[in-house]
Amino acid sequence: MTKALFPQDIIISKRDGAALSREQIDSFVRGVVDGTWQDYQTAAMLMAVFLKGMSSQETAWLTDAMTRSGEVLDLSDIPGTKVDKHSTGGVGDKVSLVLAPLAAAAGLHVPTMSGRGLGHSGGTLDKLEAIPGFNVNVPTDEFRRLVREVGLAMIGQTSSIAPADKKLYALRDVTGTIASIPLICGSIMSKKLAEGIDALVLDVKFGSGAFMKTIDRARELARVLVDTGKANGKRVRALLTSMEQPLGRSVGNAVEVVESIECLKGRGPADLMEVTLALAAHMLVLGGVSGDEVDAKWRLRTVLESGAALEKFREMTAAQGGDPRVVDDYAVLPQSKIVEEIAAPSDAAGFVTRVDALKIGHAGLALGAGRENAQSKIDHAVGITNLVKIGEPVSPGSLLARIHANDTDRLAAARELLASGIGFAPNAPGAEALIREVVE
Amino acid sequence: MTKALFPQDIIISKRDGAALSREQIDSFVRGVVDGTWQDYQTAAMLMAVFLKGMSSQETAWLTDAMTRSGEVLDLSDIPGTKVDKHSTGGVGDKVSLVLAPLAAAAGLHVPTMSGRGLGHSGGTLDKLEAIPGFNVNVPTDEFRRLVREVGLAMIGQTSSIAPADKKLYALRDVTGTIASIPLICGSIMSKKLAEGIDALVLDVKFGSGAFMKTIDRARELARVLVDTGKANGKRVRALLTSMEQPLGRSVGNAVEVVESIECLKGRGPADLMEVTLALAAHMLVLGGVSGDEVDAKWRLRTVLESGAALEKFREMTAAQGGDPRVVDDYAVLPQSKIVEEIAAPSDAAGFVTRVDALKIGHAGLALGAGRENAQSKIDHAVGITNLVKIGEPVSPGSLLARIHANDTDRLAAARELLASGIGFAPNAPGAEALIREVVE
Repeated sequence: MTKALFPQDIIISKRDGAALSREQIDSFVRGVVDGTWQDYQTAAMLMAVFLKGMSSQETAWLTDAMTRSGEVLDLSDIPGTKVDKHSTGGVGDKVSLVLAPLAAAAGLHVPTMSGRGLGHSGGTLDKLEAIPGFNVNVPTDEFRRLVREVGLAMIGQTSSIAPADKKLYALRDVTGTIASIPLICGSIMSKKLAEGIDALVLDVKFGSGAFMKTIDRARELARVLVDTGKANGKRVRALLTSMEQPLGRSVGNAVEVVESIECLKGRGPADLMEVTLALAAHMLVLGGVSGDEVDAKWRLRTVLESGAALEKFREMTAAQGGDPRVVDDYAVLPQSKIVEEIAAPSDAAGFVTRVDALKIGHAGLALGAGRENAQSKIDHAVGITNLVKIGEPVSPGSLLARIHANDTDRLAAARELLASGIGFAPNAPGAEALIREVVE
Repeated sequence: MTKALFPQDIIISKRDGAALSREQIDSFVRGVVDGTWQDYQTAAMLMAVFLKGMSSQETAWLTDAMTRSGEVLDLSDIPGTKVDKHSTGGVGDKVSLVLAPLAAAAGLHVPTMSGRGLGHSGGTLDKLEAIPGFNVNVPTDEFRRLVREVGLAMIGQTSSIAPADKKLYALRDVTGTIASIPLICGSIMSKKLAEGIDALVLDVKFGSGAFMKTIDRARELARVLVDTGKANGKRVRALLTSMEQPLGRSVGNAVEVVESIECLKGRGPADLMEVTLALAAHMLVLGGVSGDEVDAKWRLRTVLESGAALEKFREMTAAQGGDPRVVDDYAVLPQSKIVEEIAAPSDAAGFVTRVDALKIGHAGLALGAGRENAQSKIDHAVGITNLVKIGEPVSPGSLLARIHANDTDRLAAARELLASGIGFAPNAPGAEALIREVVE
């Protein structure tokens, strides 16, 4: 080992604001995985990266090293283009459940590895597991077979994917170094680059319910994610979308599966469909199925209306061991013991001006729909449905939401959080665009 | 534990540049010692402190918390003032060996706990241990008795003193977080405040052979050290002294003991005596023995000339188990097998313009007089003597130094380092003051 590759020397370089070499970054990531870097050295390095940043070149090298720390799938023997989507996470964000079958029905191959929910953010895997029998713990051979034969698969990251990220994320979580753009980028992109995709569309969310609170911060992250993807040879675009209020009208697990299937039946909420179709259209364009977004949206509407997208969802569910009757009979999903309607208070008049995504997310968490920490167990039955949207008229006693609960104490906590998250005013608020920018 | 006292939250506060509360700092230091802070959290915190700094108030609280992490000696039952000196370390810095008996002979009590050498810097304990039988591992009860009866004791930090510093220093050493002024201050001052002193004089060195390379950086450290000492109720002053060339003419262990005893016999090199007398004079003033530096220097010269200081050294040596005959017979010290004279090269003419302290320190290290790392064993017999000083005349073949070695390979390495560290020029260099400023 040359002197420049001792952990202390690499830490000191970053501490002093130097750009690290590819060799130094490779040595760091390799050391994290093989244990030659001690946890305390990694932690000092993470704080130095947090405070001193990384150039786009360093970030691309970090991401590549993290990708190569584990298995990198090669799906090149599967004909057609492999395209995935990734969201930075939000409240009521069930887009993947609608988009993956939609894009697959329109001709793409969609190899999706997702994460679990944490805090107020939901996770795709948790939602899918609300379907009885649905198995997300699929080995990579089986994953490959599903992508080839069904056109999509939605699974959890296997332990062989990006082990450097698992180690780094666990340390970031306890050392105050989560919110660093190069580290976030390495974490997100290493797992996506390991999936064997050709292209990726990113949904970078901003606002109260998102990780990035401002559009400026979201744009900054999107720029780094897109540049890193391109530097590693992938076609990548990002949409900046608002997460001020939850996406759709349902927050939870089983209740979000229902809303997703409703989308595939052509009855989805407007905001959820708008984001889903926009992301899926960019996937079709990047994947070469459509020449432009107009053609892509026409194709997507065609497979929605024909029922092909819904059938693709049913096919995927069956292929992954889930009960395919869920598509026709929501009663196969777990049901909560209590359903309570929340009515607008007597002074509510005019319009809904605020449905705070973070507060609603915390209400879902209070019900047991999410995880307080990585060890928490999830109650798939509980959640919120029929949630009002900003701009809708309201009057005393009108329905604001339905709460699905299994425990009266949790119900009370959720009721309070929900009430504090919804605001009214006599006049309708100005409409704000949901999709703000495309970063490419 | 309130939320504000979770490790992550304290780390995040410092990461974001906030001033920490006394409660947060206490919680950090307590957690480091009792293990509720994990090493990786401590490491992230150290890097955040390194990069975001600490106010003088935070630094004083940190130092106090580190002091209280272990035993704090109370010497108030010993009559008279207890005053110590601390040096930030250099090459040929045997000041403590001369100054402690000198100040004790002049009427102070001098309770000195010192460290060992590391890298090119020597350590007082290593030098004392060159004296056969000299024991620096003295329990605090015995230390107290020696200070009371002999007027001074020179020992190593016992394990009960500032355990937080031991833990933090070990982590700083491997995480690139050594050179942080608040952390250096906490480390130095916590150990000194635990000694039971009333006052402290600091020798903050700058230049090639010092930890602080520039006077500006040394002044910054001195300011923080003095303020921290005062905030914790002690009388403190610092001198800024140059460490461009080694102090005195000897570098090593036994050879520095000889030079120290020569000082006490009134035959010490001018630069070493200048620094020693200045530091000791400030000790007498801070300790209330003298009203001003003029009186203090007169008293110090009196105890030097009367032999009282030399007798104090003999007394201390005997009290700590060392062979007191060393004072009269240097042959009781370990002797090297080889002594080689280094002569000025044939093109050397004029004056010595450079005796690089760092290079000479590395020559000592190459001989085995110091420690490459904390595990290294020291050879007490080896070192350098008769070293020329900047400004002295030189001609081809004149003596530059004597090397005392026990191994021909090590001798060769030291010879090369020594030669590269000494420079000549036809004209005499301008004289530069050794003691630059007093910070109080």
